[in-house]
Amino acid sequence: MTDQDDLLPIGLEDALPARAAAITRAMRAVLDTMDAHGYDRVRPPLIEFERSLAGRMQGVATRRMVRFTDPESLRTLALRGDMTVQVGRIAATGLAEAPRPLRLCYAGEVALLRADQLDPARQRLQMGAELIGSDAVSAASEAVLLAIASLEAAGLSDISVDFTLPDLVDVLADEALPLAADQRDAVRRELDTKDAGGLAAAGGQAYLPLLYATGPFAEAAAKLKALDAGGELASRIEGLEAIADRIGGRARITLDPTERHGFEYQSWFGFTIYAAGARNAIGRGGTYTIRGSEEAATGFSLYAEPLLEASGNAREAARDTLFLPLGHDTAIADRLRAIGWRTIAAIGESDDPRALGCSHRLEGSEALPV
Amino acid sequence: MTDQDDLLPIGLEDALPARAAAITRAMRAVLDTMDAHGYDRVRPPLIEFERSLAGRMQGVATRRMVRFTDPESLRTLALRGDMTVQVGRIAATGLAEAPRPLRLCYAGEVALLRADQLDPARQRLQMGAELIGSDAVSAASEAVLLAIASLEAAGLSDISVDFTLPDLVDVLADEALPLAADQRDAVRRELDTKDAGGLAAAGGQAYLPLLYATGPFAEAAAKLKALDAGGELASRIEGLEAIADRIGGRARITLDPTERHGFEYQSWFGFTIYAAGARNAIGRGGTYTIRGSEEAATGFSLYAEPLLEASGNAREAARDTLFLPLGHDTAIADRLRAIGWRTIAAIGESDDPRALGCSHRLEGSEALPV
Repeated sequence: MTDQDDLLPIGLEDALPARAAAITRAMRAVLDTMDAHGYDRVRPPLIEFERSLAGRMQGVATRRMVRFTDPESLRTLALRGDMTVQVGRIAATGLAEAPRPLRLCYAGEVALLRADQLDPARQRLQMGAELIGSDAVSAASEAVLLAIASLEAAGLSDISVDFTLPDLVDVLADEALPLAADQRDAVRRELDTKDAGGLAAAGGQAYLPLLYATGPFAEAAAKLKALDAGGELASRIEGLEAIADRIGGRARITLDPTERHGFEYQSWFGFTIYAAGARNAIGRGGTYTIRGSEEAATGFSLYAEPLLEASGNAREAARDTLFLPLGHDTAIADRLRAIGWRTIAAIGESDDPRALGCSHRLEGSEALPV
Repeated sequence: MTDQDDLLPIGLEDALPARAAAITRAMRAVLDTMDAHGYDRVRPPLIEFERSLAGRMQGVATRRMVRFTDPESLRTLALRGDMTVQVGRIAATGLAEAPRPLRLCYAGEVALLRADQLDPARQRLQMGAELIGSDAVSAASEAVLLAIASLEAAGLSDISVDFTLPDLVDVLADEALPLAADQRDAVRRELDTKDAGGLAAAGGQAYLPLLYATGPFAEAAAKLKALDAGGELASRIEGLEAIADRIGGRARITLDPTERHGFEYQSWFGFTIYAAGARNAIGRGGTYTIRGSEEAATGFSLYAEPLLEASGNAREAARDTLFLPLGHDTAIADRLRAIGWRTIAAIGESDDPRALGCSHRLEGSEALPV
């Protein structure tokens, strides 16, 4: 046992009491909101076959996962790096016969062997909701509104939602702004990095104006419409407008139609959610197709870290805590806990109520301030 | 994507909605009970240095852990197979300066690469509480009573607690029932398997009567006292009596002083907790010394699987669920959720309230039975 063994690996950390309590409060608030909107929680395992975690959706890089060989099956197992793919598997297998639309929610730890370049964390608490069986505008609206309601329940305000159109290039490249099959990936990439020079070099000059159809939703949507001479994007823009309309004043809405980072497996609609106080996005979601079952779905994920950052890591108001001296009446203590008191019982003569954070002490049947 | 990818590895499974809801209810009941008794939750990471998980306590077999190399530090990392050791690390490091006794609780998934021979599960939900800074009778009583109260809060009744004396051989082998240093491990092992023949062969004939000092607490304790001519066990037996006395009628108490399986790292006191309906133990605990910091501690762990088995996997009473037709008034829906309704909103014309499990539908501002 050396001091080094007391350290944690880079990107992994303990949540000590104040932070752990904030995580528990936020998680309960989010899950209770999802439950109130008809989403049933499921709990997939931490570990699955690598192929199962990697196969059902595009965009999950197995090389970043924790992988190891199963001594039972001799196949490669992996620690989950994302729970959405697990919920898709459950919808396609254990709940294949459940009525649609199927509403599922989840919360759990996910881990990666290699961190993101921008975020050193190798473990995150992911929470999310998936509506399986629809990618309609009504499903997309429900997803965005539920994400907002979940964050509001966790105490956040000043929420922003950034819309995107993940399959924009697919829609335009056939006719409106034609691209050869071998140009499309490069154009997508340059649009994503917003590199005007690179875009032209990749043969995507015609896509350049799309980079400027960004900003507050109404203005950006108007710019996008003006660019859509052939009407290929009309139904998508209408969909975005309907979603924005349903959100109303509950969040600031922006549009960045070419944003694709993190939306590799989304179909027509994607959104990123931000709140004042958090530097990074709190979550993202959109419409997609579950691979294998090819079922349409809509959903989103939230992450505890930026959520707590946005809530200012709000400490719970100091709670009244009652010190129970040696030899106290345990029936009285039971009754006081039942009406909401938190108690700390003396273990020895030297226990100090004040040092242990107690606001009151029990004398007879009375709680007196210390 | 093959059908095989839809399967889960042996010993790993999904909790679908009814079971996941039962787990959430049980976990919240247990954690809220621990919190009410002054235990602060901490959240250690899923992954640590292997040496850290293995080093702080005896009895954690690293060969059963999921292990892999950290590309950052090039050291061996492991997935946690037990959270008690992590809480011990937190007490000795991040909370080294916090006042004692320090009360911490936890709940989280733990996983092993290789299952136990008797239990195929490779992932378990562990919940527990640790009181750090004391292994006194008062601490041990608090641990047992808190374990009982946690299980009662989760809906269990008919609880049994089996006491043991993990360091029995250490206490007796020096003088009362002398054993050579190289005989002790064998005697411990034979006592643990209750093999009278093996015990004699290992040179532990004198320990044979201890195998019969088992059963309902009062009788077994009397037998144990009768065997303790030199009084070496007197303080331990008194301790057990004091704990039993404080438990009173809240649980059936038995004694099996030579039981050591699972108590390899406990000191003078250990207990196993059972409830009607569960074949296996629901949890265990006792007094111990945190390795490295050498601090005395007392605690226990509970496992969700047998806990739910004992509660009969109780399904929640069917909840009223309100179907919200297309074009419903969202302000009314918000108000109804705020007073406790669960709602399911229509996504399309074909959504069937009955198939989706709704008991009511919203018409105007009224909830009418479907």
